[in-house]
Amino acid sequence: MPNVLIISGHPNLAASVGNITILLEVARALPGAEIRCLDTLYPDFKINVAAEQEALLKADVIVWQFPFSWYSLPGIMKLWLDEVFVHGFAHGSTAKLGGKKLILSFTTGAPQALYSSNGFFGNDVEDYLIQFETTAALCNLDMQKPVYTCGVSYSDRDETKIAQQKIMAKEHASRLVTVLLTLSSEPEMVV
Amino acid sequence: MPNVLIISGHPNLAASVGNITILLEVARALPGAEIRCLDTLYPDFKINVAAEQEALLKADVIVWQFPFSWYSLPGIMKLWLDEVFVHGFAHGSTAKLGGKKLILSFTTGAPQALYSSNGFFGNDVEDYLIQFETTAALCNLDMQKPVYTCGVSYSDRDETKIAQQKIMAKEHASRLVTVLLTLSSEPEMVV
Repeated sequence: MPNVLIISGHPNLAASVGNITILLEVARALPGAEIRCLDTLYPDFKINVAAEQEALLKADVIVWQFPFSWYSLPGIMKLWLDEVFVHGFAHGSTAKLGGKKLILSFTTGAPQALYSSNGFFGNDVEDYLIQFETTAALCNLDMQKPVYTCGVSYSDRDETKIAQQKIMAKEHASRLVTVLLTLSSEPEMVV
Repeated sequence: MPNVLIISGHPNLAASVGNITILLEVARALPGAEIRCLDTLYPDFKINVAAEQEALLKADVIVWQFPFSWYSLPGIMKLWLDEVFVHGFAHGSTAKLGGKKLILSFTTGAPQALYSSNGFFGNDVEDYLIQFETTAALCNLDMQKPVYTCGVSYSDRDETKIAQQKIMAKEHASRLVTVLLTLSSEPEMVV
């Protein structure tokens, strides 16, 4: 099994339904995966860059688990990216992440119907990922197909919606675990 | 003259060449503009949401001034967006920013040549802005053509490069000021 590192970028897992369910399901299915929750590690936003870089170096597969937030990373995860993925470590001639696999695993609040050329947003979900595709390219990370689930909104949650979102999150986690297990069965990933 | 609000999202203006030059030039040309520097206001990342929302409410034109950072906003500016542009204030049935003009004013580290379908990134600079276009659409902000300058990198800066970057930043500021003055002469902006 390759070393799997999951970075949780949710700003407040205590109030999460989708992301916390996904993390718990993945932890159960892949007990060897390292899960780093940025909100609980860094409530004061003082990111331990050395510890984060060490975790990345050990990983074969890196998962970014986050709620899509203004069509990008949540603020705390963007801070993490800015501070940890510095020149010399993540890119440049002494870059150290080359060849590792990167999987974006995210939920969106808006339903899938809004994400299309005919929808309100006018773009598909994956159109917003070019920022990450270029980031991966610059860091020589091997970006995989994303795993995402739309319509996991935090607004107007009631018991019925929470129950539905937990089911959606479990289904999402199942897809993510399948991808991780498939990667681990590929010959080049056997370590 | 409309009320102009400039939000600086640079994470460390003390080490800036491009963004600080742009801000100083704009301050000189438009002394009535309010300039809020997130790094100096919030070194501890504790954003005063009420103060930020009040500043936005007073503005007719909002400028986001930032260095492009992993093809998106710097972390501190993303935190600001997440915490300030909440449902009920920035979007939803009680949204309060509708009709205000939004200008993205940014520098990129990479040179323009990398940003094209034939360049390393494979996309034009403006392709990365769909995240902001959708944000503006959801908040009913009237997004203007962006003002940007490529090739303002912080790496390997020497005296010659710093001098060149200051010239580029002054030219950028001049373009931004022209846009702001043009907007202010439009009939609907005369207040």
